[in-house]
Amino acid sequence: MSEMRCRALIFIGDGLGDRPVAEFGGKTPLEYEPTPNLDEIAARGECGLMDPISPGRRAGSDTAHFAILGYDPQKTYTGRGPLEAMGVGLEVQRGDLGFRCNFATAEEQADGVLLVTDRRAGRIAEGTREIADAVNAIPPIDGIRFILEPSVEHRAALVMRGPSLDPHVTDADPHEENLPVHQVEAKAPEAEATAKALNEWVRRTYEVLKGHPVNVARAQAGQKPANVVLPRGCGIAPHLRPFAEEHGTSGALVVEVGLIKGLGRYLGMTVLDAPGATGGYDTDHISLAKTALEALDQAQIVLCNLKAPDLAGHDGLAQRKCETVAKLDEAAGVILHGVDLSSTVVAFTGDHSTPVSVRDHSGDPLPIAIAGHGVRPDEVRAFGERPCGAGNLGRIRGRDIMPILTNLIEIQEKFGA
Amino acid sequence: MSEMRCRALIFIGDGLGDRPVAEFGGKTPLEYEPTPNLDEIAARGECGLMDPISPGRRAGSDTAHFAILGYDPQKTYTGRGPLEAMGVGLEVQRGDLGFRCNFATAEEQADGVLLVTDRRAGRIAEGTREIADAVNAIPPIDGIRFILEPSVEHRAALVMRGPSLDPHVTDADPHEENLPVHQVEAKAPEAEATAKALNEWVRRTYEVLKGHPVNVARAQAGQKPANVVLPRGCGIAPHLRPFAEEHGTSGALVVEVGLIKGLGRYLGMTVLDAPGATGGYDTDHISLAKTALEALDQAQIVLCNLKAPDLAGHDGLAQRKCETVAKLDEAAGVILHGVDLSSTVVAFTGDHSTPVSVRDHSGDPLPIAIAGHGVRPDEVRAFGERPCGAGNLGRIRGRDIMPILTNLIEIQEKFGA
Repeated sequence: MSEMRCRALIFIGDGLGDRPVAEFGGKTPLEYEPTPNLDEIAARGECGLMDPISPGRRAGSDTAHFAILGYDPQKTYTGRGPLEAMGVGLEVQRGDLGFRCNFATAEEQADGVLLVTDRRAGRIAEGTREIADAVNAIPPIDGIRFILEPSVEHRAALVMRGPSLDPHVTDADPHEENLPVHQVEAKAPEAEATAKALNEWVRRTYEVLKGHPVNVARAQAGQKPANVVLPRGCGIAPHLRPFAEEHGTSGALVVEVGLIKGLGRYLGMTVLDAPGATGGYDTDHISLAKTALEALDQAQIVLCNLKAPDLAGHDGLAQRKCETVAKLDEAAGVILHGVDLSSTVVAFTGDHSTPVSVRDHSGDPLPIAIAGHGVRPDEVRAFGERPCGAGNLGRIRGRDIMPILTNLIEIQEKFGA
Repeated sequence: MSEMRCRALIFIGDGLGDRPVAEFGGKTPLEYEPTPNLDEIAARGECGLMDPISPGRRAGSDTAHFAILGYDPQKTYTGRGPLEAMGVGLEVQRGDLGFRCNFATAEEQADGVLLVTDRRAGRIAEGTREIADAVNAIPPIDGIRFILEPSVEHRAALVMRGPSLDPHVTDADPHEENLPVHQVEAKAPEAEATAKALNEWVRRTYEVLKGHPVNVARAQAGQKPANVVLPRGCGIAPHLRPFAEEHGTSGALVVEVGLIKGLGRYLGMTVLDAPGATGGYDTDHISLAKTALEALDQAQIVLCNLKAPDLAGHDGLAQRKCETVAKLDEAAGVILHGVDLSSTVVAFTGDHSTPVSVRDHSGDPLPIAIAGHGVRPDEVRAFGERPCGAGNLGRIRGRDIMPILTNLIEIQEKFGA
């Protein structure tokens, strides 16, 4: 092994991959837009196509990043609840249960039943922090702590933490209005204590919130009160080995999306915020790239994600996607001129395709180019879906990326003798 | 996702792949024979090489079609018995036991033991339908139904249907002549009832058949009687999710081989017969292609299989194989001019290689070309084993085909958020 300490940087264009666009003569935005810096990385590196999960499978940003960070989402991804909690900044620990929640409006009936009259509490926009604080003052139930964190509008995430929790419980959310709050049921005998505590907590959120000042003010303004919290989509926080244990070195994230930040924290990675990085079209992509370069001083492996291409894909805007590709290329220029490729490996790819013609994630493979220390450059000279298909990396999977990088930077344990 | 309802057609040349043929200057039949229509599909599409199971693994038509239809034969293929039963047209239900059987000749000894004197009943060619009808008149034994269906010559398939069946039983077939009919034994305690009923049924087949008119006539003609049925190769019908559940849409088959038809019925797919499709060299391949086009009105995903290339491979006839390739190309022409590629995806490939030099299935990968809606065409301009190897699909597996197609036609569920 080399004594020199090499580093690796994975730069992800979120939703980068695309399909042929008629107005671009059948080229994809990435093939159509000039990308001199990405092309230089392709020319100096080894290229290929990457399936986040496996050929043809449509990935979410979460499952794709699981895979790119070296974990098998098919074994470890148990549902969105825990990731949602990570995404809003809650600290999630192994064995915690995670839920998505709504602040809702309930009316207590004569028999004590809570009838849900608005699942979104009139799309409440303000006051949810105060409401969540009040709910978080509810003491533990049967030794189980409940931690609620508000998100956008009526949305929130909940973590349940305690002994003997089991995720096999139904939702408290009735999913339709003018139905009673659903009594949470255990789908397995092991989940009975979890269901009981959860029902008790939902009832207490009503007791705590029905007279809360935010709701009193809402009533005076003719708005619906947010007087109950309805959890759904329970999942258990997966048993993932921390990044440093899994890969034998330190990792850092410079990303704009809360969900991925939460995943990074869960894996014990350093999570850095880039000044001016908004997660929108207006993001400061240069700041993002510079922060990624700085992160290489703090961690041996850095993953950076530029969200904008995914937005343009979801919005179905081909020209706009080209603009985000141009931003990605400028960021690549900052990286290219900020690292020493004799001691650093850089990989450029996406987490999944979001074709403008589909307006959603697709299962089409992504181009990938890897340049720097130890790489055997191939004949590919342009970074794009089809040029990279001719490269020597061939068709790899998201889960292959970390082994390829830890091999190149010479820190990987040998399998065998 | 697009609101337009796209469709997908997979066209399989059975045993299509081959190895270099000296008389063709080292080209394969597919590379040697002109194939203008297949070449056009390659030129308009994305190409690659496909391993039905995994690189180098020799597949059967059954396991290859399991994989191409999106199932994992390594997890779900429990033995040939149930598929054999499907293959002869028996309706197989989940939990049924399936067996291969021989009509055999037995001589009853003084102690009542049945000695097998000819395992193939003199390769009986006629009368097995009548014999099977007589056997099928045996009433259920311990609540278990036995359904026998004759196949070619002395061969037949058997289905056992009833409560508490277990496949862990030995064969009744002694596998050698001049040995007694083997007493079926339970290899696990759960299989004891199954073994007992099976022994009883084998004995009753002798009682029913020993004086059967077909056998009386055979004796008069100096032929050996088919007076006992010997089951072997027990397997339990696998728990496969129906095609529509697995892929979220309807599927249809237009195939010539009974085994694949049986698999399709088992998966709840629509199974269509093409007029004039014989499964032989003389098959009406144009009718097959037209029926496949019609099937696209009945199902969103259609699989069509032309058997002839496999026959030529098994027969070791290179020129004959070229003729079947020419038929495949004519069928491709019918497809190419019968679909709108802006709303349809067509995939051309094989289920396995049957090289004329091997005269059997081999583990060599197959060319695949996918053209139509959503596809990113690559630089490949000819459909053949080696030209397709340079394509952007790279090297995929049989099990990747369905995810790739359901992605392209935009009906696949996303994995993650």
